[in-house]
Amino acid sequence: MTDRNARVDGDVLRELLDGRWAHVRRQARDLLRGDDFAPVAGLGMADHRERVLDRLKAIAATEVPGYGFPAAQGGADDVGASVVAFEMLVCDLSLMVKVGVQWGLFGGAIHALGTERHHAEYLPRVISLDLPGCFAMTETGHGSDVQRLRTTATYDPDTEEFVVHTPDESARKDYIGNAARDGRMAVVFAQLITGGQSHGVHALMVPLRHASGTPLPGVRIEDCGPKAGLNGVDNGRITFDHVRVPRTALLDRYGSVARDGTYSSPIDNPNRRFFTMLGTLVRGRISVAGGSGTATKAALAIALRYADTRRQFERSGTGEEVVLLDYLAHQRRLLPALARTFALHFAQEELVSRLHDSQTGRVPLDEHDQRELESRAAGLKAIATWHATRTIQTCREACGGAGYLQENRLPQLKADTDVFTTFEGDNTVLLQLVAKGLLTDYRDAFGDLDPLPMARLVARQFLGAVIERTAARSVIERLVSAAPGRGEEADLYDRGWQLALLEDREKHIVEGLARRLRRAGSEGADAFEVFNGAQDHVLAAGRAHVDRVVLEAFVAGIDRCPEGGTRVLLDRLCDLYVLSVVEEDRAWFLEHERLSASRAKAVTQAVNTLCRGLRPHAVDLVEGFGLLDEWLAAPIALGAESARQDMQRRAHHPR
Amino acid sequence: MTDRNARVDGDVLRELLDGRWAHVRRQARDLLRGDDFAPVAGLGMADHRERVLDRLKAIAATEVPGYGFPAAQGGADDVGASVVAFEMLVCDLSLMVKVGVQWGLFGGAIHALGTERHHAEYLPRVISLDLPGCFAMTETGHGSDVQRLRTTATYDPDTEEFVVHTPDESARKDYIGNAARDGRMAVVFAQLITGGQSHGVHALMVPLRHASGTPLPGVRIEDCGPKAGLNGVDNGRITFDHVRVPRTALLDRYGSVARDGTYSSPIDNPNRRFFTMLGTLVRGRISVAGGSGTATKAALAIALRYADTRRQFERSGTGEEVVLLDYLAHQRRLLPALARTFALHFAQEELVSRLHDSQTGRVPLDEHDQRELESRAAGLKAIATWHATRTIQTCREACGGAGYLQENRLPQLKADTDVFTTFEGDNTVLLQLVAKGLLTDYRDAFGDLDPLPMARLVARQFLGAVIERTAARSVIERLVSAAPGRGEEADLYDRGWQLALLEDREKHIVEGLARRLRRAGSEGADAFEVFNGAQDHVLAAGRAHVDRVVLEAFVAGIDRCPEGGTRVLLDRLCDLYVLSVVEEDRAWFLEHERLSASRAKAVTQAVNTLCRGLRPHAVDLVEGFGLLDEWLAAPIALGAESARQDMQRRAHHPR
Repeated sequence: MTDRNARVDGDVLRELLDGRWAHVRRQARDLLRGDDFAPVAGLGMADHRERVLDRLKAIAATEVPGYGFPAAQGGADDVGASVVAFEMLVCDLSLMVKVGVQWGLFGGAIHALGTERHHAEYLPRVISLDLPGCFAMTETGHGSDVQRLRTTATYDPDTEEFVVHTPDESARKDYIGNAARDGRMAVVFAQLITGGQSHGVHALMVPLRHASGTPLPGVRIEDCGPKAGLNGVDNGRITFDHVRVPRTALLDRYGSVARDGTYSSPIDNPNRRFFTMLGTLVRGRISVAGGSGTATKAALAIALRYADTRRQFERSGTGEEVVLLDYLAHQRRLLPALARTFALHFAQEELVSRLHDSQTGRVPLDEHDQRELESRAAGLKAIATWHATRTIQTCREACGGAGYLQENRLPQLKADTDVFTTFEGDNTVLLQLVAKGLLTDYRDAFGDLDPLPMARLVARQFLGAVIERTAARSVIERLVSAAPGRGEEADLYDRGWQLALLEDREKHIVEGLARRLRRAGSEGADAFEVFNGAQDHVLAAGRAHVDRVVLEAFVAGIDRCPEGGTRVLLDRLCDLYVLSVVEEDRAWFLEHERLSASRAKAVTQAVNTLCRGLRPHAVDLVEGFGLLDEWLAAPIALGAESARQDMQRRAHHPR
Repeated sequence: MTDRNARVDGDVLRELLDGRWAHVRRQARDLLRGDDFAPVAGLGMADHRERVLDRLKAIAATEVPGYGFPAAQGGADDVGASVVAFEMLVCDLSLMVKVGVQWGLFGGAIHALGTERHHAEYLPRVISLDLPGCFAMTETGHGSDVQRLRTTATYDPDTEEFVVHTPDESARKDYIGNAARDGRMAVVFAQLITGGQSHGVHALMVPLRHASGTPLPGVRIEDCGPKAGLNGVDNGRITFDHVRVPRTALLDRYGSVARDGTYSSPIDNPNRRFFTMLGTLVRGRISVAGGSGTATKAALAIALRYADTRRQFERSGTGEEVVLLDYLAHQRRLLPALARTFALHFAQEELVSRLHDSQTGRVPLDEHDQRELESRAAGLKAIATWHATRTIQTCREACGGAGYLQENRLPQLKADTDVFTTFEGDNTVLLQLVAKGLLTDYRDAFGDLDPLPMARLVARQFLGAVIERTAARSVIERLVSAAPGRGEEADLYDRGWQLALLEDREKHIVEGLARRLRRAGSEGADAFEVFNGAQDHVLAAGRAHVDRVVLEAFVAGIDRCPEGGTRVLLDRLCDLYVLSVVEEDRAWFLEHERLSASRAKAVTQAVNTLCRGLRPHAVDLVEGFGLLDEWLAAPIALGAESARQDMQRRAHHPR
């Protein structure tokens, strides 16, 4: 390794990480500066909601809300900017979520599911915040299973109205952001019934409140009350008692009802229609992945700055106490997490780019591409939010008692992001979605052929078919084909070998899963039992896929970095990412004879070595994300700890 | 297996789990019934503190506070009862901690470190709560490294007083429970200086406040402010400015200062004196392990009851939706955690018994036994609190959006227990303590002999020397000696094989660690570098030890259970515990050729099979802990979910 003298060049790293929407990140750093947006610890729920609404109004006065909307309604037609602007709101995750509810979910649904008429009527007021609204999808009884929502919208041809109704408590809309206090209108998802026939879930515009704030007749709203976090967001429950809305309230891009009640849709198959509608809402998941990423970065910035200052226990014989980050155990807790955070950052940037290019029509997607986009969004959301939960927890512990104080921000970051693993799709459900996508690709590639001998015959082509590389395809293919095979001789740090290793794991798991499900299925067994018995296998397939995709994005990101110290260190960080992924799952590699016992042990040693090598650069690396001091807001990360130590040192060595 | 028809007998299980202090558990169920002690969601900090103090007073009126104190001061001399009573306070963990601060830490320190005079003067008022107090050990700059606390207590022979002083901010007492509001006096740990010489850390009684509540001259108290959780506890920071206390304020069991300033101690070696003093405070750690256990049980009770009711996604073709707990992935998240919770329960009971028998003089401990007790307390505290953090987090996620609402208790359980991994000793530091104890045992057994050939020669005796079995020694030895060896042929469910497997892992890791440290040490290398380079190995040793000790306790617990369905199911639960421990670390077993690849895969399959088999009994098992509905307090666990489903079912199948 030639990286002994490598140093991070702050500007180079910042430019690389800021990426395609650098201007949006810079704008956020300008706009959200100072006390106005700084987090406040220990606010009561009412005060917090008030503060968040106030800041939401300040943001409404900027160009930010318009990013994702059509130019025709005063927007910027820049979907990518809207996602990046969302994730920058780490100063207060309640504000982040409230922004997401108003402009991402509420406005986004009108944009995606409505037609010109709805756009013209509502979007300008949504953008300006004159019309605060809700995205009323989830019900108490059905969250993950959106297809079985039980709110009904029954068409009455006599009055040309829909009757929106909640049959019972299990069908009330639940956890709806903006509902308890501020929302005036909602996009309500309901089973559309006309002429006695149900056409599945559709969305309608339903007014909730008078301008005065009191609910409209037939609308009952309850406050969800205090939550673990995000208490600046007014989540509520909405029950409809035969509420009538005009026929035009139906967001009718994918299904419309004529005056006489005749239903029509550009998509005949109800199942396909449903999933197409849901698919247009993919931005929400991508945004959550991004938001959880920024929260993770903030937690790591706090914990790493503290670990680089705080000392505990004397280094025997020296009279000096050891800096926490010099302990291997502390490095092991924080540095692989930092590496994965970088990897996910690049994967997120790539996903946002793809979303942007497709939704702005630059790169139209066919059905397969669209499925892949959705699958990737689902997978990245699951892995990124679990990573956030785990990492922020680790950061809290790594800061000891200080990390438990709200003034040091970590408790709020933890509590606020906790629900990210749940909302916009429960992670376990999402990973299964990813696996199903992989199985579909598999089936498309092989039809009804028995995959086992097939796979053996055409292993290489097969790999090409199932493993679709997206990021910097040519770079990755070059690296993989230059890799020195599977054997013991390959260098653990060889990127091509690493890429091939994760590809191979994914391929093997998906292949085995396909065989297992097909074999069991053909015996006429109970479909649920078969699937359920393989559920851990299914989840492993999803995870292996995301790990591989994320690695490729990291590699592609590094490829965009100019030669020099920053790039050298990013290369080491990428080694740490992939080798800690391998280490975590090394039982699998051992069980499937991809690693020998001695090589598996060498992976563990390599992770230790990489931790030690990256330790001096850890703070510089995390600073690359460009989070303002006022967003971190934790005294322990802003000089309090080092000031105390200086005082202590003076006490021991008075001049 | 003959367990197809096995059912849990609720009474049998309750009696077994209630154990030696069943009367204390029953009393808690009587005393803490109804609304008075029920958790309240969303209380502000001031209200919460007020409520906790109020409930503390109610408890002060019972016999509970006296449990751990000498009969001479109106106590019951029943240390075990005090620990068990503490852990039963799961209705509000702020109350639990406040009880622990007043009677465990403050009163406990006076009891353990003071002499007759202090006992007579203070303990009756401590027990009655007429004297609320603090345990002022931790400082802002030093938490884990207690030996380097920097508060000073300098003896002034002219006035026969100690001058207690905080030299700078880093030396202020921090995170001190009872300090911000209610404490009148504190046990303050400080460097004792007399005649210009320091004698290390000692404890003194220092008054903090007038009866009116205002701080005394020279005492400055700040509020730590809002924390992640435990906001019913008034944690504060205390700074002393040359505060004078009489000579008799020194808790002088292990060190006293004569009128003229002469220092004397029954223990000459300052290092040994310090660790002996700390060792007397071991009850705190044991209590935290117990408290985290009850919180884990509560979280599992909520999540399992919900998972046994809540349905999502249709089982195709049946029109019925699948109950969450029928999903393998859901079982995998909750059932191994349940198994470990049982295992830890039995290990905790055993540890409390040992503490009780030693501190009440029933079974006096020699130095080695005392070290083992402390080591076990440290190890169990670390593993139990990490288990709590992880399990409560999992339970929150497993309850989806409902789990994020404070009314469903999980957010508070999570936030309150979060600091358990930190206080009473940071877990990473504690596990290293465990490993150091194991290495000391190793050295004691082998002196300076080269351990490698030695170990090969006398593997069996050696095992006896390093692996000290405590729980039901004879049962375990019988099982191990009947075990069919290491080979592929042994039944995964054979308890003797399982015990031998975990013993062997511990032995191998400790042996390797000893070799590694000694080898590196003998080359004249930097001691810190050597230790630090092996830190992950050190932590693995601690973990392996605790896993084995916990398994033995589980086996011993089952041995106390009468034959029948309950015992059969506990046996399966114990299988699930040990096999999920093995599964989690199966990379180690593969790397060290303790398991073949196919056998490792079989372990994973066995975990799945056990999950499926235990699923119908999961709720019955968790009910065995006997937590009252009003402590769980979560509507989703108390019928709200099933009521909603009944309503929904009626809507679909109107009669």
